[in-house]
Amino acid sequence: MAENTWKTSLTNIEPNKITVRGYPIDKLMGKVSFSQAIYLMLKGELPSENVGKMMDAMFVSSIDHGVTPPSTLSALTVASTGAAFNAALATGILSINKFHGGAIESAMHIFLQINEVRKRDELSFDDAAVKVIREMRENKKVVFGFGHRLHKQDPRTVKLFALAEEYGLAGDHVQIAKSVEKALVEVLGKQLPINVDGAMGAVLCDLDFAPYFGNLFFILSRISGLSAHIHEEQTTMKPMRKIDPFAWEYGGPEEKDL
Amino acid sequence: MAENTWKTSLTNIEPNKITVRGYPIDKLMGKVSFSQAIYLMLKGELPSENVGKMMDAMFVSSIDHGVTPPSTLSALTVASTGAAFNAALATGILSINKFHGGAIESAMHIFLQINEVRKRDELSFDDAAVKVIREMRENKKVVFGFGHRLHKQDPRTVKLFALAEEYGLAGDHVQIAKSVEKALVEVLGKQLPINVDGAMGAVLCDLDFAPYFGNLFFILSRISGLSAHIHEEQTTMKPMRKIDPFAWEYGGPEEKDL
Amino acid sequence: MAENTWKTSLTNIEPNKITVRGYPIDKLMGKVSFSQAIYLMLKGELPSENVGKMMDAMFVSSIDHGVTPPSTLSALTVASTGAAFNAALATGILSINKFHGGAIESAMHIFLQINEVRKRDELSFDDAAVKVIREMRENKKVVFGFGHRLHKQDPRTVKLFALAEEYGLAGDHVQIAKSVEKALVEVLGKQLPINVDGAMGAVLCDLDFAPYFGNLFFILSRISGLSAHIHEEQTTMKPMRKIDPFAWEYGGPEEKDL
Amino acid sequence: MAENTWKTSLTNIEPNKITVRGYPIDKLMGKVSFSQAIYLMLKGELPSENVGKMMDAMFVSSIDHGVTPPSTLSALTVASTGAAFNAALATGILSINKFHGGAIESAMHIFLQINEVRKRDELSFDDAAVKVIREMRENKKVVFGFGHRLHKQDPRTVKLFALAEEYGLAGDHVQIAKSVEKALVEVLGKQLPINVDGAMGAVLCDLDFAPYFGNLFFILSRISGLSAHIHEEQTTMKPMRKIDPFAWEYGGPEEKDL
Repeated sequence: MAENTWKTSLTNIEPNKITVRGYPIDKLMGKVSFSQAIYLMLKGELPSENVGKMMDAMFVSSIDHGVTPPSTLSALTVASTGAAFNAALATGILSINKFHGGAIESAMHIFLQINEVRKRDELSFDDAAVKVIREMRENKKVVFGFGHRLHKQDPRTVKLFALAEEYGLAGDHVQIAKSVEKALVEVLGKQLPINVDGAMGAVLCDLDFAPYFGNLFFILSRISGLSAHIHEEQTTMKPMRKIDPFAWEYGGPEEKDL
Repeated sequence: MAENTWKTSLTNIEPNKITVRGYPIDKLMGKVSFSQAIYLMLKGELPSENVGKMMDAMFVSSIDHGVTPPSTLSALTVASTGAAFNAALATGILSINKFHGGAIESAMHIFLQINEVRKRDELSFDDAAVKVIREMRENKKVVFGFGHRLHKQDPRTVKLFALAEEYGLAGDHVQIAKSVEKALVEVLGKQLPINVDGAMGAVLCDLDFAPYFGNLFFILSRISGLSAHIHEEQTTMKPMRKIDPFAWEYGGPEEKDL
Repeated sequence: MAENTWKTSLTNIEPNKITVRGYPIDKLMGKVSFSQAIYLMLKGELPSENVGKMMDAMFVSSIDHGVTPPSTLSALTVASTGAAFNAALATGILSINKFHGGAIESAMHIFLQINEVRKRDELSFDDAAVKVIREMRENKKVVFGFGHRLHKQDPRTVKLFALAEEYGLAGDHVQIAKSVEKALVEVLGKQLPINVDGAMGAVLCDLDFAPYFGNLFFILSRISGLSAHIHEEQTTMKPMRKIDPFAWEYGGPEEKDL
Repeated sequence: MAENTWKTSLTNIEPNKITVRGYPIDKLMGKVSFSQAIYLMLKGELPSENVGKMMDAMFVSSIDHGVTPPSTLSALTVASTGAAFNAALATGILSINKFHGGAIESAMHIFLQINEVRKRDELSFDDAAVKVIREMRENKKVVFGFGHRLHKQDPRTVKLFALAEEYGLAGDHVQIAKSVEKALVEVLGKQLPINVDGAMGAVLCDLDFAPYFGNLFFILSRISGLSAHIHEEQTTMKPMRKIDPFAWEYGGPEEKDL
């Protein structure tokens, strides 16, 4: 059967023993956080404590955004037909694409390209950003990761960047994201503040994640939010109700302090 | 539009403000771990620090189990056709059902039932377990959460229970899981040690999670393992290869110490 | 490899040769309709010409029901995020469950049970229907396949039964469906006319399909309707639009004659 | 609510009345085949009788290809975990992508491009094919729709083209597909016969379908094959069995004549 043999470098399984990326899984338990284990699984090495905290902050930042994102609406719609929990969840995940959540990956490609241009042409961050954004504009390409229909100053962005500074992790790409914000004013003449997708993309570039994983970070984060919505739908709503995306009201607890 | 109005108690969205379960999301960032935020999202309250650590340990315990579980094989098969990342991931999630991962939920129902019988009939943990397991046996019902085709003493189970003790969280249901292990010897005459699904189920009952969420814990945990496998498939393997579930070899790093 | 060997009885593949259920596929092409081939694939034998026509009529009957069913709404929502065509379609299929489309299977179980009771207790169709419906009512079980929120006399039901008569295919279960309609008046005191799910279920029972396939008939039929909706969404609508299930208008061609 | 209003041109629903593309659905039942109704749904007009027959032949041609295609393997793997029928089916559909089934769409783009070049540069079919294939070759692009790992002379291709001639439907694109076959010999120096994907693509172009729908034709056709496999898995196989894609055997009926 030699011809069919294939190799995986991720996980080894033997009787009474499981190693992920070389580490016995029972030794990781109790020692590393879930976020650190995710990093290990995706990148092959355990992260520093600060990188682990940054991962935590990113996952917390996108854990939910209410009932109106398409991933929530599609998951609720499927949940209301009596679907199994995992089918409703899979639907939510199938909704995270180019126009929803996908901006993280798209923004990462832009930031990486600006950094390449910066190095190649020996430009400042600001000049490299203007050069690339101007070209994108001429080719009618969308600059993903900037602007939000609702939030003019997204509290999640502010906090992500503050934490990246605090943990000593803000690097070239966080700098570039800020340069892009300025470049957009110069090139388009309008304020399009960095949104949470753009901020996540910048931090992920600084943590040296491939853009391929941009989508995953949003999915990993949002999946527990989606799960809570699916549970609410299946335990408190009438099956097959028509879900009006404009007619929702918040009926949860008052604002709390930490 | 009053007739279409519906209420959600989870998340409130206003311009420049997002609260989940009442807490401003930017205040949670940097303060609580991803696991604590998941708990908040699902249960409505922030967990204690120890509960957060227990959640971390559970998520780490099931993060991956190599290439042979059906969820990994189906995700790899779909990934090899050139599917989008999220479609391969959704496939993995659609594979987590009654016979794969589903044992967590099934075990939780058994543990809860034993505890009810114990209280109602004023029995000891061991006697209540024998009573319920004997009835299940007579009705030819499977006792989910016990036995494993490969692991005779699952290192994850041992560690989960040790941590539950250490964090002061082991309660009635961890006790009941141990009683079921003994009852299986008495009723079936064979050793079927608690597996990781059974152990997770017991701890989740002690943390007062509804069985509905059992499936979710496995999905949440495994999704990053699946993601790493999908990435490995799409970046290192030939499209449309035939995936032989018997012919894999481990080619990753040697065992490492923490 | 003997231990892994498994057998399939459906399709054989050799170089330059494909047989399905024993028939060379190229000999079926041009000789049998798609509906006849579906029957062959599912049941193992080619159907008579009339059964083929009945299958055609059933598939045509449920090909679409506009934009408001949950399967359409969830597929449109996913389509609007920039999803691949097949991901939006898979979402539509994941929406077809107990409360949407699933009534076919549920109705089939009821009809089969009534027929068993009828034979076992040597009752008339009407008496057997009353007996079973009364029991269901006492156990608070829903009688699926009857009543429709919009259609009081569903034109599809009328036509399905007329064609079943015309093709000589109406048997015990079509008779039973009519008896159930009467029984509902007697037991519940209200008119709940057979809907298209109930009618499909009755005909499928008379064609000797297992209830397992009830869901499939709806999916097979609806998949082209869903596809047309997904295409309309992705070619004529703005990405990420909010889809209001109450605010749609029909803007297609005027009614045409055949 | 005027601002949320949206229009669909596909289906109108009123009490006791359903029209698809303008035709009352009950008038279509019994008059048109499933294939004709699919054409109506996708294209907006009823097809001629011969186009209906051509659609039937295309759908029959790809109804199944045994247990080894990735869509079947992934659907079986999910089915073996105890998944709902529609979840296994959705998985099969999520497997139909660029490298599996997707060749129809890719081939359609090539044929359409060759026809444009032919008209623009006033070339013969053969010369236009050589020109485009040579350019594709220089840009290392794959010529989808030609060659098959197993079938050197695919019986389905031969029959599809024969029926297209018989029904008077073979046009420019069937001609172009044949020219590409010759061009591949000239440019690559090897025989890569048209496969069933290429043949379907050519006929679909001659029927004036957009490439967007290429994927759908394969899905629509294969869905009943997948359904039969899922049913076989769930009714005759052990849950969670390891599915060896090399170790299957055919155990169905002997070859039959029509």
